[in-house]
Amino acid sequence: MSGNTFGKLFCVTTFGESHGHALGCIVDGCPPGLEITAEEIQLELDRRKPGTSRYTTQRREADEVKILSGVFEGKTTGTPIGLLIENTDQRSKDYANIAEQIRPAHADYTYWAKYGLRDYRGGGRSSARETAMRVAAGAIAKKWLKQQFGIEVRGYLSQLGPIKVGKLDWSQVDQNPFFCPDADKVPEMEEYMQALIKEGNSIGARISVHASGVPAGLGEPIFDRLDADLAHALMSINAVKGVEIGAGFASVEQKGTEHRDEITQDGFQSNNAGGVLGGISSGQELIAHIALKPTSSLRIPGNSLDTNGNPIEVVTKGRHDPCVGIRATPIAEAMMALVLVDHVLRQRGQNADVEFGLKIPAGVSE
Amino acid sequence: MSGNTFGKLFCVTTFGESHGHALGCIVDGCPPGLEITAEEIQLELDRRKPGTSRYTTQRREADEVKILSGVFEGKTTGTPIGLLIENTDQRSKDYANIAEQIRPAHADYTYWAKYGLRDYRGGGRSSARETAMRVAAGAIAKKWLKQQFGIEVRGYLSQLGPIKVGKLDWSQVDQNPFFCPDADKVPEMEEYMQALIKEGNSIGARISVHASGVPAGLGEPIFDRLDADLAHALMSINAVKGVEIGAGFASVEQKGTEHRDEITQDGFQSNNAGGVLGGISSGQELIAHIALKPTSSLRIPGNSLDTNGNPIEVVTKGRHDPCVGIRATPIAEAMMALVLVDHVLRQRGQNADVEFGLKIPAGVSE
Amino acid sequence: MSGNTFGKLFCVTTFGESHGHALGCIVDGCPPGLEITAEEIQLELDRRKPGTSRYTTQRREADEVKILSGVFEGKTTGTPIGLLIENTDQRSKDYANIAEQIRPAHADYTYWAKYGLRDYRGGGRSSARETAMRVAAGAIAKKWLKQQFGIEVRGYLSQLGPIKVGKLDWSQVDQNPFFCPDADKVPEMEEYMQALIKEGNSIGARISVHASGVPAGLGEPIFDRLDADLAHALMSINAVKGVEIGAGFASVEQKGTEHRDEITQDGFQSNNAGGVLGGISSGQELIAHIALKPTSSLRIPGNSLDTNGNPIEVVTKGRHDPCVGIRATPIAEAMMALVLVDHVLRQRGQNADVEFGLKIPAGVSE
Amino acid sequence: MSGNTFGKLFCVTTFGESHGHALGCIVDGCPPGLEITAEEIQLELDRRKPGTSRYTTQRREADEVKILSGVFEGKTTGTPIGLLIENTDQRSKDYANIAEQIRPAHADYTYWAKYGLRDYRGGGRSSARETAMRVAAGAIAKKWLKQQFGIEVRGYLSQLGPIKVGKLDWSQVDQNPFFCPDADKVPEMEEYMQALIKEGNSIGARISVHASGVPAGLGEPIFDRLDADLAHALMSINAVKGVEIGAGFASVEQKGTEHRDEITQDGFQSNNAGGVLGGISSGQELIAHIALKPTSSLRIPGNSLDTNGNPIEVVTKGRHDPCVGIRATPIAEAMMALVLVDHVLRQRGQNADVEFGLKIPAGVSE
Repeated sequence: MSGNTFGKLFCVTTFGESHGHALGCIVDGCPPGLEITAEEIQLELDRRKPGTSRYTTQRREADEVKILSGVFEGKTTGTPIGLLIENTDQRSKDYANIAEQIRPAHADYTYWAKYGLRDYRGGGRSSARETAMRVAAGAIAKKWLKQQFGIEVRGYLSQLGPIKVGKLDWSQVDQNPFFCPDADKVPEMEEYMQALIKEGNSIGARISVHASGVPAGLGEPIFDRLDADLAHALMSINAVKGVEIGAGFASVEQKGTEHRDEITQDGFQSNNAGGVLGGISSGQELIAHIALKPTSSLRIPGNSLDTNGNPIEVVTKGRHDPCVGIRATPIAEAMMALVLVDHVLRQRGQNADVEFGLKIPAGVSE
Repeated sequence: MSGNTFGKLFCVTTFGESHGHALGCIVDGCPPGLEITAEEIQLELDRRKPGTSRYTTQRREADEVKILSGVFEGKTTGTPIGLLIENTDQRSKDYANIAEQIRPAHADYTYWAKYGLRDYRGGGRSSARETAMRVAAGAIAKKWLKQQFGIEVRGYLSQLGPIKVGKLDWSQVDQNPFFCPDADKVPEMEEYMQALIKEGNSIGARISVHASGVPAGLGEPIFDRLDADLAHALMSINAVKGVEIGAGFASVEQKGTEHRDEITQDGFQSNNAGGVLGGISSGQELIAHIALKPTSSLRIPGNSLDTNGNPIEVVTKGRHDPCVGIRATPIAEAMMALVLVDHVLRQRGQNADVEFGLKIPAGVSE
Repeated sequence: MSGNTFGKLFCVTTFGESHGHALGCIVDGCPPGLEITAEEIQLELDRRKPGTSRYTTQRREADEVKILSGVFEGKTTGTPIGLLIENTDQRSKDYANIAEQIRPAHADYTYWAKYGLRDYRGGGRSSARETAMRVAAGAIAKKWLKQQFGIEVRGYLSQLGPIKVGKLDWSQVDQNPFFCPDADKVPEMEEYMQALIKEGNSIGARISVHASGVPAGLGEPIFDRLDADLAHALMSINAVKGVEIGAGFASVEQKGTEHRDEITQDGFQSNNAGGVLGGISSGQELIAHIALKPTSSLRIPGNSLDTNGNPIEVVTKGRHDPCVGIRATPIAEAMMALVLVDHVLRQRGQNADVEFGLKIPAGVSE
Repeated sequence: MSGNTFGKLFCVTTFGESHGHALGCIVDGCPPGLEITAEEIQLELDRRKPGTSRYTTQRREADEVKILSGVFEGKTTGTPIGLLIENTDQRSKDYANIAEQIRPAHADYTYWAKYGLRDYRGGGRSSARETAMRVAAGAIAKKWLKQQFGIEVRGYLSQLGPIKVGKLDWSQVDQNPFFCPDADKVPEMEEYMQALIKEGNSIGARISVHASGVPAGLGEPIFDRLDADLAHALMSINAVKGVEIGAGFASVEQKGTEHRDEITQDGFQSNNAGGVLGGISSGQELIAHIALKPTSSLRIPGNSLDTNGNPIEVVTKGRHDPCVGIRATPIAEAMMALVLVDHVLRQRGQNADVEFGLKIPAGVSE
């Protein structure tokens, strides 16, 4: 199966370039009977949409999604759901000058090396605009997970450059342009971002995603473990350079007595595992963290080569995000939701009849 | 496809439990004409084998591999290669007492929840013993990559608990029982491990893997990016809790001017990308890091429940690794090799005819 | 992977119902650099289009295809190609009365049993209208095969009900509304169809498809043999009830001396194999035949049940094909082309470097 | 996924050549809790085994199967089941002379063209011996289907060369060496076969397979229809040249009024559909037929070339089946069972919660 499909049973296949006619995707394998409207999908898309604050690119993307198939009288039919977003604000002229540039830390060189030619307009297929369809498909997944199991997938910005979040207050996440769960840190973030924009530079970020209500038993050892599929899903998001499950890299310095999440009749006493043991969900809160690199579209000149191999200085003048991580929260949520729904279906496929005797409470969430 | 197959074109499917009759795998899709012997595969297996130093489990695993098919007159034929390791030292009695225990941080509970029953002997399928077949399959992948492209996949221990490696001297890696590339740190590691064994505790580790000689153009955006498939592969290894590509989580605090790897006619001037841009290899050295949790089989009692939900204290008396990370280096190398060979074949499939004009030198490796 | 994707490397995923907003597909994995226009794809669609003669349904389908992505400056880029056909002539009212009918030999009951609900308008997803996207994707495949290897995929009607074609003159196939290669049989077919339409009945048909220029070596034993994948592809077309390769069911009565295609320096002396030996193409002409059942939408009443289990008489008044087989020729060609392009890519993936010494001429074509 | 894996959720991957060390397979995705023993699997293997009558090859294959993993305390655990048959009677010398021959109608040339080299001993991977593992895996599938749903998969020889079976008496099938369900035809078959063996020739056959008890709702339109996956499965068996579902090629001459299976409250009144409508099972008996070509290993000389392109006469002296179709019945049953179990799991995955109101009785079986 080629690289633009995600999932084994709940399959999302996407197409579309930044400056082509449209973006779209096909969601195949969605269980029937789910009530879904374009408006519900739009709500998630609007969370990702650029141009909503001064801290994201000012490029306008209408991102208006249409459902083309697979939904009849308001309900999914089990047949493939076609989703479409037509591109409106394309301004290809902004990008004409980069046709012969190899921008540092962009995919210009690698797409060229792979395919021998590339659609250079706005990054073409490598543009973060592609992630819109992940969010659209993820909206369907999220609704189904919520409705069938009470599973809730939520993310937040846990670090913006040097600024680490101090507390996790879910009610704050949608109250600021950063998806920051710590209201006290918001002013600091605003100040930091303003300085950064002035400087013409960019910064990395760390996003965390949680799923609560995940039943024990999801994940397909040994290669399609739940954590492995999550790592795949999250690392496939543009600009992601690292993925952690639970304690992640902190595990390196933990002793066994510290890391092992002991269990009492009240449930798990800690969650270093991040909700996955042996590649299978444990019923604990599922937790992942990702690192996003700073965007490389900068006003500050950088050294590179042109496509003839001559040295050039690259300066980006277009509209770009100073911190791509800010808008990544809904994308990361979507990818976790897609992994979960796929694994619910896979688990039902093989193990629909399984019963087991003991439900350990989720216990401590983090 | 079920969870025990890895790869799209170079496919490895494994079977076997810790204390069953045998472990085995099928390597399907291997290009024909590769000279390979059981002895060559054995060399890689011996690097992973336990019992070779006092810092790994004293359990003996002969791990003697046989080639059952797919090789004729010393060469691969293109048909599936069957590999088999018979289990010899099974001592199931050691494990009988854990049949009704839910060991903290083990897969006991999750396998039970998933399948409704489990082979509790030595962890059954969730045992790290399963990774032997990854190493065996990886040995074939490594040889082919070396021979066809000069690609070399090598790993090392970059951190043992609190002890970080100071320098990377590849010639040292196989000179000590830790795969440590910094001879100066070996005595400190020995001391640390001895204290740990005495304490009955365990510790996490960080492993780094590099591939040199990787051509530009490997990776299948947008979901099967090279880095996403690497994350999948590496996170699927037992005990892994985090994966980084290149700068990884350090990217979070990097500014764009710092992270972007500038390019001159001498090649890339830094390698924060870890060899992947837009999900496609750039021709730079491919670099990944993984975090391994401390093993949870400890002599120090831990709280948990039995399968009836009653509180118990779990104490492990069997033979176990105080640091599973130590033996993970060959496994991580194997998984990176499997990802690379699969992507070479995928790239040839779609893009065999592609030519492009500019080869940027790999430049700075890290 | 869910059921709406075809192919392993050259992957086609489709969506769309007969009376929804649109039909569409994503062609993923197409090699880059292929010149392709919407007009070229349209030419193939027009061959399948209904309403072109009195022997097919009079329903109008504009079937105007748009390329939404994956093509830049007239050439494929290697990224997914999005194709869209908007539905225009939807007349859902024609179908309102069938919401509670279980039409005999239709998919009404089975879709309902599978999904618990169904889009009953015009058969929804089970409508033959779905095949338009196969033809569209197949047009890309056909062009690439022709250009890269000189492979030509062509089909014809070999039997219409009781009327068997006597000779194979490729130049005649597009000269009559039946894709009949034997001009002498056309008047008989016209007469037969007119009587049938008058009667309100329908009839089955047999279609044959050939590919010339296929190189030896395509096909992936043991399960993804070329003939097995062809059987999969062709049997997935609406109304197909049988698939033959080469001599097909005639092999049952053949002796070994008769069936085996002997070889001389002039090539193969017969082609009972239909171009496939051991699941791999032999370099002979690739030949498949399919049986299509008569459509079940008839003016003559048939006994059935309604969705409450009450006996009913079903009469179809809408616009329907008296012989669905007539329009199946371009669809069968498309499916064979999709199988071939997929196997060319798979073959390059594993065996790009293979050389062998002896090219046997294709020899006798049938 | 490479060509040696069958199934999406219930996956069978096989390896092994005719004269290698062993044949084996991995059955991945089998639901847990199924009681299964090597003896039960052996019973099915013995039905396929050569050397049991004078009408099959006299080659001895012990075909003794071992279960290496995935079964604990007599029950499947849900983890991969490793099965192994060691080769004992290898007599490679019989085949040494064919190393440089291209035997007509064999896979010698095509394997060579594909891979550039081949294991010529006994046909290597292309040998019918490979089908033993299909039967072994199918035995597990059959037991599960029977136990969970009462589904029974049974096959018979419906035609041996010119001799068509007159009646279907299931109780006769295992009472003669032909799997012939019509006792009256057995003497005629014996006589025919004896003459054939004397002549040194071979003959084709037609095998029919039925599954009763199949619930409505299995099959994944539009590409992975139940009939399409069956066609794939059955055409992948060695020597198969044609596949029919239900009325098959007879549909070509049927009118719509004749073909459509009318429905009353007693169920379906005929079964031209063969149990599949719109690619989904209807609850009727599932029926498929296959055509097997005559084996091409003959004592009667045939013209061909050697690997240098020189004309040769090929004469086969080894032990071979005069009618490979005779032993194909258990293989065809196995493949139908594998398709069914895979589709049951896929159906549960997506549609586990689906309920629908009307169960139409299976009605007339053929």
